[in-house]
Amino acid sequence: MGDLKEFFGAAAADVEAKLSELVAEPGRLHDAIRWSLFGGGKRFRPALLLASGETFGAAREQLLQTAVAIEMLHTYSLIHDDLPSMDNDDLRRGRETCHRKFDEATAILAGDALQARAFQTIADDQRLDVSLRLKLLSGLSLAASRMVAGQQVDLEAEGRRLSIDQVKNIHANKTGALIEFSVVAGALIGDATVAEIEAIGEYGQNLGLLFQITDDLLDVTETTESLGKTAGKDARLEKATYPSVLGVEGTKDLADAVYSASLSALLKLKRPNELLAQIAKFIRHRQS
Amino acid sequence: MGDLKEFFGAAAADVEAKLSELVAEPGRLHDAIRWSLFGGGKRFRPALLLASGETFGAAREQLLQTAVAIEMLHTYSLIHDDLPSMDNDDLRRGRETCHRKFDEATAILAGDALQARAFQTIADDQRLDVSLRLKLLSGLSLAASRMVAGQQVDLEAEGRRLSIDQVKNIHANKTGALIEFSVVAGALIGDATVAEIEAIGEYGQNLGLLFQITDDLLDVTETTESLGKTAGKDARLEKATYPSVLGVEGTKDLADAVYSASLSALLKLKRPNELLAQIAKFIRHRQS
Repeated sequence: MGDLKEFFGAAAADVEAKLSELVAEPGRLHDAIRWSLFGGGKRFRPALLLASGETFGAAREQLLQTAVAIEMLHTYSLIHDDLPSMDNDDLRRGRETCHRKFDEATAILAGDALQARAFQTIADDQRLDVSLRLKLLSGLSLAASRMVAGQQVDLEAEGRRLSIDQVKNIHANKTGALIEFSVVAGALIGDATVAEIEAIGEYGQNLGLLFQITDDLLDVTETTESLGKTAGKDARLEKATYPSVLGVEGTKDLADAVYSASLSALLKLKRPNELLAQIAKFIRHRQS
Repeated sequence: MGDLKEFFGAAAADVEAKLSELVAEPGRLHDAIRWSLFGGGKRFRPALLLASGETFGAAREQLLQTAVAIEMLHTYSLIHDDLPSMDNDDLRRGRETCHRKFDEATAILAGDALQARAFQTIADDQRLDVSLRLKLLSGLSLAASRMVAGQQVDLEAEGRRLSIDQVKNIHANKTGALIEFSVVAGALIGDATVAEIEAIGEYGQNLGLLFQITDDLLDVTETTESLGKTAGKDARLEKATYPSVLGVEGTKDLADAVYSASLSALLKLKRPNELLAQIAKFIRHRQS
């Protein structure tokens, strides 16, 4: 996995540089935005977009601004999810959450601003032609809507007993939509065919599921220190998780099945995709 | 002003019909979204877009979806501004605010969803060509960013003594940006020239200022019952208002000057614009 580590490291560095360039205003609101944007995030979604886009032959400079927009949207969702009226979390990536470091109003506005900025970042990307930018904006807005819908159902589900399909449905929206869009966006920028976009979308759906399944497993098996966020939180909040429905062993079996499905989707691509396969493998076995 | 009342009435009806068509999902999140969207709003911003667009010869069906997107963005900003950590208001248009009727998490998510939906509504408007949609999305995202920045500075300014330029700057962003964009968007859809867009933008800037100035005056001179929202709130929160800096008479003088400036901008259009002139006059003298 040496190549993958290198890829993730370089991707994160490129994403951070582009983010710094795009979010550089003064003032308390932007201090809060930067606190959350540069809080040690793994840049997983933008890296995924870069991996997908480069698989389809796009140049990194064509991909970076959309990658950064996705990270902005993701960061906004984390800031709002952490709020007292939602998951009420004090810790994110080993540091205070935005509303703890600043205040609640500033955290809400920082999230709001990041959502607007995500759309602006794609709309104003002069490297991409007009119809491509419009496709990306349409996809981003749909993913943004699905994230919110998933978070709402997730909050309502707290304390309730759910079926495995209900759990999958929550996470397909809450976490999956943006992961799926990340790989699809890369393919769109790489000018993939309709069949390729369908295949990569299937990969993305499975990867999104896998990401949430392994996230749930980590919440059960790891410590707050190793995660950099509060461990055991799902059980405390009686969240709709895979282990709560399937048990730990059943969840591991599901992870294996979903991992296989992601690789099957890649087979349909009919072009080299080793990096995307490695990413799926990495997510299956991640420790944080 | 008989014609204007008729125009506003018909515009509001068209906007409500299009909103109903676009926001029809089931579930608590959408109940909250509809509670705020169909809470008796005057539909001022969408009406302004229709007035501007029709001044430039656009057909109403080309304008409606963008008009509705602007109302979605406006409604999201009201829901978030009313939250306990922001203006903490229980009453909006004579009814409970979203977080009072539902709960805080749902209100935050309803706002988040409406922002996403506003972008989606323009991105997916098949009536408009691709490059026009992209221009509109770029403008909407900039207005959305400016609104948040204005709200942040407005909250920070509570209890502080500001200069008139600081007050103007807050409101140029917080209220003005979306009003300005409403008239500019109409002109863009109506395929206006660069010079015309500049002139209508100047009208929109002045109209946005005028709207906030008369809003501040109403907060001082009217009752909670006549406004349908809490009167005297600005003074209680020690908000940055025009009367607090200029006094009531000084504020009326500024309103007259800004009203004149809006009419001067219209003169540059070199085409009939009676409706836009009437709207400015109406805002100057509005009672609610």
